[in-house]
Amino acid sequence: MTDALTDKARAEALVELTGWSLVPGREAITRTYAFASFADAIGFMVRAAIHADRIDHHPEWTNVYRKVHVTLTSHDIGGLSQRDVELARILDKLT
Amino acid sequence: MTDALTDKARAEALVELTGWSLVPGREAITRTYAFASFADAIGFMVRAAIHADRIDHHPEWTNVYRKVHVTLTSHDIGGLSQRDVELARILDKLT
Repeated sequence: MTDALTDKARAEALVELTGWSLVPGREAITRTYAFASFADAIGFMVRAAIHADRIDHHPEWTNVYRKVHVTLTSHDIGGLSQRDVELARILDKLT
Repeated sequence: MTDALTDKARAEALVELTGWSLVPGREAITRTYAFASFADAIGFMVRAAIHADRIDHHPEWTNVYRKVHVTLTSHDIGGLSQRDVELARILDKLT
């Protein structure tokens, strides 16, 4: 079972995850990545998708041309968990 | 230059494009595709992305697990054009 982040763990995660912010009114974090081209944006999504599926934790994400807006939350607990932090770290490493 | 659809062409396109609907308050059409798996949803996006880039007309689209929500509009004219109809047809053929 996924555990919700404690307040302390959440605060620490947000300090660590530069570029990510809390979604107003929602237990979720978000980041927008900008790439040099549409092909680069889709390439990122493909690489990220394989990692996400491997850890069985999937982003909500929107692509508009060269940009990818990512939102992470743990639907099973209706909040943020260590799995969101893990996926955010993976995505950041891919860029 | 992209031309906006005439009212008649737009009405005909919406009859032809089963499953697509106008976005309330916006000159855009939208459709949600549901797939059997996350991998299938991403696979669709990859195939669609290659076609979209070839015709240089790009969707706004959101993936949430097995679903892909697509919105099409022609940003250069701030409305719907034949290019949106063309891309919608391509996406439908890929599913």
